[in-house]
Amino acid sequence: MALSPKYITGDKSAINEFIDKFDTFLFDCDGVLWSGDHVFDGVPETIMMLKAKGKRTVFVTNNSTKSRDDYVKKLSNLHIPCEKEDVFGSSYSAAIYISRILKLPPGKNKVFALGEAGVEAELAAEGIPCVGGTDPSFRRDMTPEDFKGLADGSLLDPEVGVVLCGLDFHVNYLKLSTALHYLKRGAVFLATNTDSTLPMHHSFFMGAGSCMIPLEYASGQKPLELGKPSQAMMDAVEGKFQLDRSRTCMVGDRLNTDIKFGVEGKLGGTLHVLTGVHKKADWDKKDAVAVPAYYADQLSDLKIVA
Amino acid sequence: MALSPKYITGDKSAINEFIDKFDTFLFDCDGVLWSGDHVFDGVPETIMMLKAKGKRTVFVTNNSTKSRDDYVKKLSNLHIPCEKEDVFGSSYSAAIYISRILKLPPGKNKVFALGEAGVEAELAAEGIPCVGGTDPSFRRDMTPEDFKGLADGSLLDPEVGVVLCGLDFHVNYLKLSTALHYLKRGAVFLATNTDSTLPMHHSFFMGAGSCMIPLEYASGQKPLELGKPSQAMMDAVEGKFQLDRSRTCMVGDRLNTDIKFGVEGKLGGTLHVLTGVHKKADWDKKDAVAVPAYYADQLSDLKIVA
Repeated sequence: MALSPKYITGDKSAINEFIDKFDTFLFDCDGVLWSGDHVFDGVPETIMMLKAKGKRTVFVTNNSTKSRDDYVKKLSNLHIPCEKEDVFGSSYSAAIYISRILKLPPGKNKVFALGEAGVEAELAAEGIPCVGGTDPSFRRDMTPEDFKGLADGSLLDPEVGVVLCGLDFHVNYLKLSTALHYLKRGAVFLATNTDSTLPMHHSFFMGAGSCMIPLEYASGQKPLELGKPSQAMMDAVEGKFQLDRSRTCMVGDRLNTDIKFGVEGKLGGTLHVLTGVHKKADWDKKDAVAVPAYYADQLSDLKIVA
Repeated sequence: MALSPKYITGDKSAINEFIDKFDTFLFDCDGVLWSGDHVFDGVPETIMMLKAKGKRTVFVTNNSTKSRDDYVKKLSNLHIPCEKEDVFGSSYSAAIYISRILKLPPGKNKVFALGEAGVEAELAAEGIPCVGGTDPSFRRDMTPEDFKGLADGSLLDPEVGVVLCGLDFHVNYLKLSTALHYLKRGAVFLATNTDSTLPMHHSFFMGAGSCMIPLEYASGQKPLELGKPSQAMMDAVEGKFQLDRSRTCMVGDRLNTDIKFGVEGKLGGTLHVLTGVHKKADWDKKDAVAVPAYYADQLSDLKIVA
């Protein structure tokens, strides 16, 4: 049974004690640092304060539409100090997994991607050939020839060995049908992440998991997830940053991704902030998916330290 | 525990006995009468033989993309005798449910449809106003204004009281996001059917359920299904045709839709044909979803009767 999380907003000594327990902070972005394009007040100063105290700050995001370079740009524009090496996205995590763990044989090493430019950029950075993605020739209606050519395989690339699903704002029947046919021919099924929703403008839109779920439903197969809360991502983060898990804290706004990620990764701590998806009632429920160790109203509450 | 189904192909006396047990035959279409546009040999003659023996033949289909009129045209082109009253589709079933059971109040009586012309035609026939559907203004990419306007509600029609999902070959992020926002505002969630796949060209494409499932995943709500195996459809079929269930047989190729529909509807019998999705191994499994009473290699095997 998890203990009740400790509420630290406004409690200077609790916050100091909290910060002192950790060397590394892993931050979820959407719902923690910002909502859509609106950065929360005091966030840049909070990150600067942590860095000034010698903490490592890493941005661990399930958003697959942006590459690490895109994230550095976004964070810099919002005055949050960050270098490319501090960003760990689910597209990057997937690309690393494909190139270093799957190690596909030549002639079967292409990826059919359902996703945006972020997925393509990270695959390219690892030297992985990719079809689908933002290719405009997939942004159209199905034709009778597509039904026939997918069914008989003549429209399929025989070198595709992986179907990778991320968030695709251009998801359509043609892309889904193409991906389904690759899966039926034995392609490995991967997902950057399976978040059902995407928070924007104080509302929720379709997340990467909602783009992927038709394939799971139609194929009867489950993808291997490479974003939070998958421990494949935690292993990759640990490997890259050589971090001491007991001195690392995950900061997030979702129990089923961020907090679960930290708890199952046996990190030293987890901090839930109330600026995003889940609220106190969500972990007070009997069947809560995960319970944080700490919670605060907002990330900038950490700023009151001396 | 269900008994093993009786195999009747080639057994003239068993076939005669089978036919004599029933006054009404409910036929699934895809996988039973045809595959895509290819009608199976001997199917028209089999239907004619049953009609000549005084049997009622009803076509009960989950395909929501076609209206009853479309079906009459298709069946007639394939030389299968049929009148409009013999067709019972999932779009028709949904339209009947909305107009006669839901009886939405004025000012909240519009349907946002994810689907093709068949859904629109059946809603129109019941006098139900519909938005979405095949409206070309929904067949485009999301814009930043769409995200904003859906989130703040300014792009939503306040009169929409139902989201109805059928098979939509033009499913996209904009339609799914619009439907999700109607659901969040309390719209009733209906599905013409939840078939995961659509058989075509001896392969499988995305079915109506695979167009709907992102909404279930993102909203956390399950739709009320109005196609097979939903007993809402059986009740509607029974009401319309005043049939004696004990003298009615369901003929199909899918255990989870057709056969389950007949078994749960307590029909006098079910006949599984092996020209579609499920095979003998599927009901021999320990956890088979439903087991037919009879099976045959193909529908035209019934023709050998005297």
